[in-house]
Order: sequence, then C-alpha cells, then structure tokens
Amino acid sequence: MNDREMSCNAGGQFMDRGRMNQNGVVQPLLTDLYQITMAYAYWKSGKIDDQAVFDLFFRNNPFHGEFTIFAGLEECLKFLDSFHYSQSDIEYLRQTLPEGIENEFFEYLGNLTAHDVTLYAIDEGTVAFPRVPIIKLEGPLIIVQLLETTLLTLVNYASLMATNAARYRMVAGKHVKLLEFGLRRAQGPDGGLSASKYSYTGGFDGTSNVLAGKLFNIPVRGTHAHAYITSFSSIGELKTRLLKHKQTGVMEDLLEHAVRHRQMLSHVLDVSTEESSEGELAAMVSYAIAFPDGFMALVDTYDVKSRDTEQVTQVLPQTDSKQKLSQPTMLELGQSLATLTPPTTPTLAMLNGHKQSNGQQFESSNGHNHVELATEPTTTTTTTISYSNGSAYLPKYVEKSFRSGLLNFSAVALALNDLGYHALGIRIDSGDLAYLSCLAREAFEKVAERFKVPWFNKLTIVASNDINEETILSLNEQGHKIDCFGIGTHLVTCQRQPALGCVYKLVEINGQARIKLSQDVEKVTMPGNKNAYRLYSADGHALIDLLQKDSEHPPAVGQKVLCRHPFQESKRAYVIPSHVESLYKIYWKSGKICQHLPTLEQVREKVQISLKTLRNDHKRTLNPTPYKVAVSDNLYNFIHDLWLQNAPIGELS
Amino acid sequence: MNDREMSCNAGGQFMDRGRMNQNGVVQPLLTDLYQITMAYAYWKSGKIDDQAVFDLFFRNNPFHGEFTIFAGLEECLKFLDSFHYSQSDIEYLRQTLPEGIENEFFEYLGNLTAHDVTLYAIDEGTVAFPRVPIIKLEGPLIIVQLLETTLLTLVNYASLMATNAARYRMVAGKHVKLLEFGLRRAQGPDGGLSASKYSYTGGFDGTSNVLAGKLFNIPVRGTHAHAYITSFSSIGELKTRLLKHKQTGVMEDLLEHAVRHRQMLSHVLDVSTEESSEGELAAMVSYAIAFPDGFMALVDTYDVKSRDTEQVTQVLPQTDSKQKLSQPTMLELGQSLATLTPPTTPTLAMLNGHKQSNGQQFESSNGHNHVELATEPTTTTTTTISYSNGSAYLPKYVEKSFRSGLLNFSAVALALNDLGYHALGIRIDSGDLAYLSCLAREAFEKVAERFKVPWFNKLTIVASNDINEETILSLNEQGHKIDCFGIGTHLVTCQRQPALGCVYKLVEINGQARIKLSQDVEKVTMPGNKNAYRLYSADGHALIDLLQKDSEHPPAVGQKVLCRHPFQESKRAYVIPSHVESLYKIYWKSGKICQHLPTLEQVREKVQISLKTLRNDHKRTLNPTPYKVAVSDNLYNFIHDLWLQNAPIGELS
Repeated sequence: MNDREMSCNAGGQFMDRGRMNQNGVVQPLLTDLYQITMAYAYWKSGKIDDQAVFDLFFRNNPFHGEFTIFAGLEECLKFLDSFHYSQSDIEYLRQTLPEGIENEFFEYLGNLTAHDVTLYAIDEGTVAFPRVPIIKLEGPLIIVQLLETTLLTLVNYASLMATNAARYRMVAGKHVKLLEFGLRRAQGPDGGLSASKYSYTGGFDGTSNVLAGKLFNIPVRGTHAHAYITSFSSIGELKTRLLKHKQTGVMEDLLEHAVRHRQMLSHVLDVSTEESSEGELAAMVSYAIAFPDGFMALVDTYDVKSRDTEQVTQVLPQTDSKQKLSQPTMLELGQSLATLTPPTTPTLAMLNGHKQSNGQQFESSNGHNHVELATEPTTTTTTTISYSNGSAYLPKYVEKSFRSGLLNFSAVALALNDLGYHALGIRIDSGDLAYLSCLAREAFEKVAERFKVPWFNKLTIVASNDINEETILSLNEQGHKIDCFGIGTHLVTCQRQPALGCVYKLVEINGQARIKLSQDVEKVTMPGNKNAYRLYSADGHALIDLLQKDSEHPPAVGQKVLCRHPFQESKRAYVIPSHVESLYKIYWKSGKICQHLPTLEQVREKVQISLKTLRNDHKRTLNPTPYKVAVSDNLYNFIHDLWLQNAPIGELS
Repeated sequence: MNDREMSCNAGGQFMDRGRMNQNGVVQPLLTDLYQITMAYAYWKSGKIDDQAVFDLFFRNNPFHGEFTIFAGLEECLKFLDSFHYSQSDIEYLRQTLPEGIENEFFEYLGNLTAHDVTLYAIDEGTVAFPRVPIIKLEGPLIIVQLLETTLLTLVNYASLMATNAARYRMVAGKHVKLLEFGLRRAQGPDGGLSASKYSYTGGFDGTSNVLAGKLFNIPVRGTHAHAYITSFSSIGELKTRLLKHKQTGVMEDLLEHAVRHRQMLSHVLDVSTEESSEGELAAMVSYAIAFPDGFMALVDTYDVKSRDTEQVTQVLPQTDSKQKLSQPTMLELGQSLATLTPPTTPTLAMLNGHKQSNGQQFESSNGHNHVELATEPTTTTTTTISYSNGSAYLPKYVEKSFRSGLLNFSAVALALNDLGYHALGIRIDSGDLAYLSCLAREAFEKVAERFKVPWFNKLTIVASNDINEETILSLNEQGHKIDCFGIGTHLVTCQRQPALGCVYKLVEINGQARIKLSQDVEKVTMPGNKNAYRLYSADGHALIDLLQKDSEHPPAVGQKVLCRHPFQESKRAYVIPSHVESLYKIYWKSGKICQHLPTLEQVREKVQISLKTLRNDHKRTLNPTPYKVAVSDNLYNFIHDLWLQNAPIGELS
C-alpha cells in the first residue's frame, strides 16, 4: 500500500520469539463471547470473504492531560503471531456455544490464523492523540472482528500506564529517580507485571517487582521494610558484628565502629544516643554487614519518645492527611531489653565505655532509653525553617523516629567508611517529606565536612509513602532534596483514571466506507481507510496530526497543506511542514512481523524523544493546550458530503 | 493448636491440583526485591530459626461501605503449595543481587519451600471487617517474610473485586441477572481474568470473558456488537434466508415471515416500516438463522431519521451525561442502497407486495427510507410518561434507533416463533435505560396479546453502557423493566476505589508480641498471636467480631463475654452469643492443604450466606452502620499495659 510495505521482510521474521515470553493467558479465548457468536453468524451468513478495516483509537486523553503514550504494540503482535485456537479451545467452544452450531464452523475456527490480517500502527512509545487511530487492521471481517477484545485489553492498560508514568517523570524532572513499588496493590498478579513493564516504558528507572525484572530485563530495586528493623530489639541479637575490610581483608567489628561514630555524631546532629533505638542500630549493622556496598536504610521506624509532629507536617498538603501524619512505631512487648540481652553480650553502655555490672544498671540504661522525659520546644509553631544557615542540628520537634534513624544510619555509614565501603543512602516513608529530606541533606553535608567524608554529600535520599503526581508537584514547590521516589498504589491503579477507553470501530467493509454518527460529535468515527501524518515545524515541534484518505498523496515538506477541524467548518489552518512523519508502519502482514521490534529500552527512549517534540504547553499539568488533530480538505469533504447525504432533514410543523 | 487442626489430613492433599490452573506468573519471584534482600540479611544475621507471626488485614472497607468480601485464598494456597525458586530464578537473583552474596544463601533459597509455614484463614467468601486478620501466618521469619508481596497481590484485588460485585448484586436485587463485560477495560489480561472470576464470586451470573469461562467454569454470555448489525446494509446481502422449522424440519424463508410480521407490527407499535432499517433487519435475520434458539439482538444501532432525545434522556441522572446522550448510528457511505442490492434480490418493497421494477423505484423506496421528513411532536416536554395506561405505541420522540430496532427484533422474533423457536430478548446499549426498558416491556406485552405469543411477555431485556452502582440505584428509583445488566469498566477497575490496601504486619517474633504504635490510632496493630470469633444473636445475625489472645478460651454459647473497643476505654458491651463461630481454620500446615477447598460455585454461595448474616443497616448504600470489631478484656489489658509501659511520658516545662 505504501513504501513502508517494502520494509516488510517476507523471507524472515524479525522478532526473536524467545526474547520475551508473553503471559500464557494472552490467547484467542481471552475475548468476549460475542466475538465468537458473531463470527459464527458471519460465517453462517456467507460473510467469510468480506474484507474489513477496523480502527483502534481512544476518544480522550487520560488524567486531564493532552497527550497519551501508545504502548502494548509488541504484545499485540505476539498475539497475532500465536493466534490459533487449540483443540481444547475448540472443545470448550463446542460445549459452550448454543447447540446446533455446524461442525464445519469449528473446523474453520481450528484452522484460523491471523495470516491474512495486515496491521498498521504508530510506533510503540510514540505520543498519540484522540481520534487518530493508533492501530489499523485490514483483513477478513471475521478474523479482524475476533481480534477486537484482546487487542483492546493489551493496548488499553499498557497505554494508560505508560502515560501515567510519563506524567510522573515530567513532574519529577529528569534528575530524580523513579521506582515503581506497586505490585501489592496492583489489580491482579499480571496487572502488577504490566504496571512494572509500562511504568518503565513511560520513564521510570526501575521496579521492586523481581519477576518483572527477570521477564523484561528491567532494573529491580529495593532495600528493606520496617519489619526488618523491628525484627531486632537489641544489639544482643546481633549474631555477627564482623565485616571484612574492603581493602585489607581484615575482619573488624562494625558495631564497635558504629557505636564510636554514633557518640561523636550525637553532638554534630544534636541527637543524644539515648534518643535513638538500640534495636534499630542492631538492624542497620546487620543489614550493612549483609550489603556493605549497598547499604540503604529506612530511617523512620522507631519512635523512641513522644512525638510532636504537627507543626512540621502541616507544611505539605496531601491527599489524605490522616495517612500522612501517621508514623510507624514499633515497640517490642512482653520482655524488657535487659532480659533480652544475654549477660555475655555487651550493651551499648558498655561499648560506650561505661563498664557496669548486669542487673539494675542494665535496667537503668534501658529504662532511660525509653522513658526519658521529653524536652522539646513544644511551643514552637514554625512551619518552615530556613535551610541556608548551615546549622546541622536536627530540631527536637522533628519526628523522633527520624532523629533516631538518621543518627543510627550515619553511624553505620561512617563505620562502613572505616572499612572501605560507601553507603548508598536512606529511605523516608512517612512525615513531611520535603522538610525531612532537606534536614537529612543538611545533616549529610555537615557530616561530610566534619568527618572528612565528601561522598556523604552524595548519599541518596529516597522517599515513598502514597506518592502521587500532586504530591510531587507540591514537594517541588516547597523545595526538597529527594533523589528518588518509590511510587505504588497511585501509579499502578492509575487512581485518577483507571481506564483509557480505547475502542475498535469498523470504518470500511468491502471497500465501502462506514461512518458512525452520533448526537455526540466526539463519538462520530472517521470513515474509511485512512493514513495519518504528523507535521512538524522548523524547530522540530509537532504542529498537527493530519488524517487523509488512503488514496491521497502524503503531505510534502515545504508545501502548504490545508488542515481542517473534522467537524467545525470554519476552523482551518494552512500548514507548511518542515518535516512530515508518516505515522503508520506495517507491523504485521502475511503472517510475519514486518519491522524490527525495538527493545523495551528503545521504546522507553522513544517515549522521551517523542515527548520532546511536543510543545511544553501541551504537556503542562494545569490547563494544557489541546494538540490539534485535523483532516485533509479531501477527507473533510468526503465525511461531510456523505454525512449530509445520509442525515435526515427534520420538519417542523 | 485447636480442634481445627484435627481436620488436617496429613496423609493426603485435598486439593485437586489439576482442577484449576494458576496463572504461571504467580511464582516466588512475583515479589518485591526487598523481601529477598531482607531474607539475605536475616540469613546473614543468623535469624534463620527465628519464628514469626504475621497478620494480613485491611484497615478500611472499600467503597464507603461497612463490609468486605474476603477472596483470593485458594490462589494463596496454590502459591504456597508450589512455592519454590527454580534454577533460573536463582540464576537471575545471582546476577541481580549485589555482589558478595554468599553462595550458601542461594543454596538455601534453592531448597526453600513453604512446608514449615502454617496458614490460618477465614473461609473464602466470608464477610470480613477492618483490623480482623483475614489470614494469619506462622513460621520461620525468613519464609513468612518472603511470602508477603505475593499474598497481598493475590488477596487485595480479589477481595476488592468480590466486594464490588457483591455491592452491585445488592443494589440490583436477587432477580436481576448481572454479567461482567469488562475485559477490554481491565488492567491487563490477567486483571481481566481476575475480574471475571471474582465478580462471579461476588454474585455475578456470568461473564463475557471466554477464557475465564474455560478456566474457572463460569457461565459465559454474549450476543453481538453494533458492528454485526452495521456489517449489513441491505437484505440483498443475506446469502441465506432459510431456516429449518424446529418441529417439522421443513426449510422456510425466515425473512419472508419477518417481513410479513413487520408489516403488521408496524401498526401495533406505531412504527412505520420506512422508519426502520433494512440493514438491521438483514443482520437480525442472519443472526436468528445462526442462533434460532439463542436470538438476542441489540436494538439501538440504526438511527434512521433525525433524533430528538433530549426530552427523554433527562430522566436519568448519570455520571457522564455527555456519554449517555450519545447514540451510535451507522450509515453506510459511498454507495446507495439501490446499487448495493443486486437486481436479482428482492427489496423489502417487493417482499411487502409492492412489485416494482429496478432503478427509479428502488431509489425512490430507499430515498424515502432515509429522508422522509420528521413528524415528531417536537414541542413535547414530558420527561416521564405513565406506563400503566396500556398503550403500546412507541412515542415518536423516542430514539429512532430504538424504534427501528424494536420493530425489527419483534418481526424476527415472531418469524422465529412461526418456525417453532423462541427468541431470548434484546440488549439496549444507550439512551434512557429505565424509560426504554419500560417501553420495550410494554411493547412485548402488547405483541404477546395481539399475536397470541405469551412467551413474548418473558423476553429478556438486557441493559449495558457504562453502568455503575449509582446508575442501578437511579434506575431502581425510576422503575425499570431490565432483567439483566452487562457491566464493564466501573466493575473491573473498581473505579470508586481501585485498591483495597491490605497490609501484612509482624505481630510476634520468637514468642514476643510486637505492636506497631502510630499517631493515627487506626494504624496501631493488634499485637501477638490472636484468634478471632464471630458472635451471633438468636436471630442468626452477626453481632460482633472478637479478637482474643490465642491462649484464651473461646467464647461460649450462652455465656456473657465482655467485648471492648480496642482503644476507647469506655466503649464496652456484654454479649451473650447464641452462636459462636471460630473464624480461623488451618488451611495450610506441614506442606499440605488441610481443608477441602470449596469450588468457585460454593464460594459464591458462601458470599450470599455470609452477607445474609449481616444486618441490613450494615449493608445499605447510604451511611451504613459500622459493624463492631472488639477485643476481649484480656487482650485489651495486654495491649494497653504494654502500650503504656512503652509509650513515653512527655514533660512540659
């Protein structure tokens, strides 16, 4: 049909089928029953040779935005490639369809493949717009109809997810890492996998989902949960404290290093060692021993004293303030620290140089650790503080857990440094993320200076806890020092709009164009077999998408094209494109994938390249400018002549 | 631990593994990476023999309701049963985890199973409430921690979906059929499958998803789409019109019967044959020939004349009025009906007895069909009409497509009747569903009477088109005659709340209870290993759920139990239960499934039985009464003694 067809390599198949396995549930029966009953009725009516053209498109961009990222194409092609009813499928259909279905139909189904279908599509990862078909299928009516539901289910969520991820990437900026943490809240196990895959496509840097990592070769990331910290209640539980020095290979006592640094740090950070949790220190030491080169710690687990966080948590407006104010705090019950600590194990007090006997002294030490009276300036009402004065103290009204966590983390990180290792950073999972990240960054800078460990300046600060697009925007406004966001529920469920609403419409049958009229102009389909072009300005920005009848010549560079609003007669524009992109390629023809399929990594790059061609005003969060989708004058007249010819004229009497 | 343990058949395994296959993506790597890094750190810290208890629970009921249906248990058990890292999993982890992981750890992982884990759970399909664990796991800390994410992902969406479906069932009432039509809008292919499965669990009657039907033995339903109707443009396209009489076996011309009835029906229904579409008639005849015993037709495809629907569509308040007002209308373009109809094929005019020659006459007939001037009472402003006056006319201001569709459907249904078959009914996919369903029912009753076909009274009326819980409530208020709803997007994406938010919390380690304190009392966990009981009144209603320490004696029938609010000291109630249900059963122990697992059908029945034990005020849509969840006096004191003992006392100065 066009030049692109030439690129179809009839002799070979580009796709490495083994490269990435498709979920086994993607099969011809993953469809609505009515596709199969219709197939029988078509078959029975002798429509076996009817040729149809269907368009797959969406009517509205999601999330109140003005663009959509098209994703899911590779899955569609794999589906076409493997399209075949198994013997057990046929058996099931025989039992399930009404009695009286002719046997020949089942034979017909059993031999059906997608070999006679031709699939045109926009490249996966490209920015797409309402009404411009992202996929166009030509082929026998029955087969093309049978593909509908599966193609929709493969494109709908994939595109929604990639778009959502791309939006997060835009608000977070280029330099912040984004990790997908949503598996536990995803809609089913495969919903989780699709979320991981397409959030990566849309611009995320990795996922916590290990299987997604394995199947799609996506970076996987993760450290530990609060449960890890809380599984330790004292340093007595540390079965090993030794770690090999990275350079010398000599085994050293990491805990001893950590305790020594902790003592010094307590002055620098103005956090007394009694304010910080012993169990947390033990957990962090053990984690550092397991991952000396990958030490990243949660710093908000232990609330050692009473908390008074309201002043600081007011700073950040969030969707569910009740959730944001909450703070996990774990206290072990039923046994005192003293009894937990075997007599042969030193307590921190002993490590700190206070040699003492067991018993009363222990209780005193530990009791002190837990019930020391608070001395916070409870009258403080400041809601923001200046971060520029160079002061490194951690204000007393800051979440206690954070004070404890930051002290213990810094101590363990310095201990690791003694042994030749560099820690990675911290994760904050509660509280005022902007404020705490600034405090942490400031503390790290102070430690870097005082302890002469410049790499401390570059420690990573990860933030998680119910983050969405608005949270990130708000954090940006406040100023934050977060290097990485871990995002779950809002990302994977696409909470703001959980369905894209792609549709699949018949536009031509046996060479005759079909139009679907509707009271609602938005629902009127563009009739006939069409081509789509994207016209670019001299500065490389996309100006307009143009639909034409497939018999028309493509627009040419430097030549004026009349672009018309499909329905509003007076809305017209002449466009002289500096570059014309033909949006469709033949991806599937004669039973073969006709293009070299990009890797997931390449699709991910494509998303950013494609987004870059879009003017910023189309991409902004608030009131973005709609991108123009037009029809050629020829297509406009074709649509409207026939519309008028067919629409009835009312009579008033 | 309790009597239930006795029911564990150590010698055998109840579950027929072949009965229902689990999606292959449910495997140990379907988890967050941090579970595995934590496992290594636990292992490295010598915590290999630590024993833990974790609770899986949710904190809030979804959809502003006061109950949740627990679902997903069978999938969890299958996951435990097959829990094993494959060689390729281990290889992947070796490449993915930081360098320096000891080789013995991978060996340990390679030999890991869930055999040492014991899983207690509430029965699948039971009504569950916030804070009462629905699953409790005991076992080695490392393994139980490794199960977290997968169990959450299996329970979260399953329970959300089952709850959503149960709510639809409640508002629709017992006698209305509910079908799940959401595959194309689901979150990924398996999201669609889970939706089909758990909407059936929650009380739906079937799905359009064929694979779900095959895998889970759920009834599948479906007829045809608008595309089927619009693929026909004239009766000339009917390659066969013959259907065998059901009793006599004689082949008869179904079209001829239909056309004859259509003529008569046009008077009864006050719809002229010119107002109805010829292509639609052809499509319906062909569909009836394919499914003579299963004839159900979409009746809102063809808008033959101008439309004037605003008066009637105002009746139904809907979420997106723009969408509701729209109405699909398909006109074939680029060729007149006359040229489509081969000269050898009779037109309707000929079948109707108007013998005429080709050419001008055809054009006249067809032109008339399309451009006859409207004569509707456009001044009508009535927004509701009385359905009780027995008048069977279809008001002219009703959607034209519906007038056309109902006439054609009735004609084909009567034609089928002549040949010994009974049609099933109609589907309405647009417009004012309450109003149109009443009109259709009235029309069917009139036809039943006039044509002496009493079964016409019982024709099924199916409604689809973006239906949600509110739509059904609104339809109920207006009065409707819909027998069946087809529900998609809102059901499967759980648009009102797309995630349940189950959590998995450590409550005991090595025999020591753990409590997680929080500013937000809602987030405080119930410490220790607990049992849960549901206490019933004499009339069979559930009164309260009671959590106890697992060392306590169960509450006894007829004996007064003090039930306490877990956090509000003064909220106490004495309950004398007439029946006590111990909520937990051991479902998994020593590597075996310990209960006979119910079929999906049985779980579905369980949902309705369990919901019946709940008072109506807990179930109502608007401001339902919260169901009480209490702790025993013993557990109350245990929690609060330890809480006070551990929470610091502040000092004001």
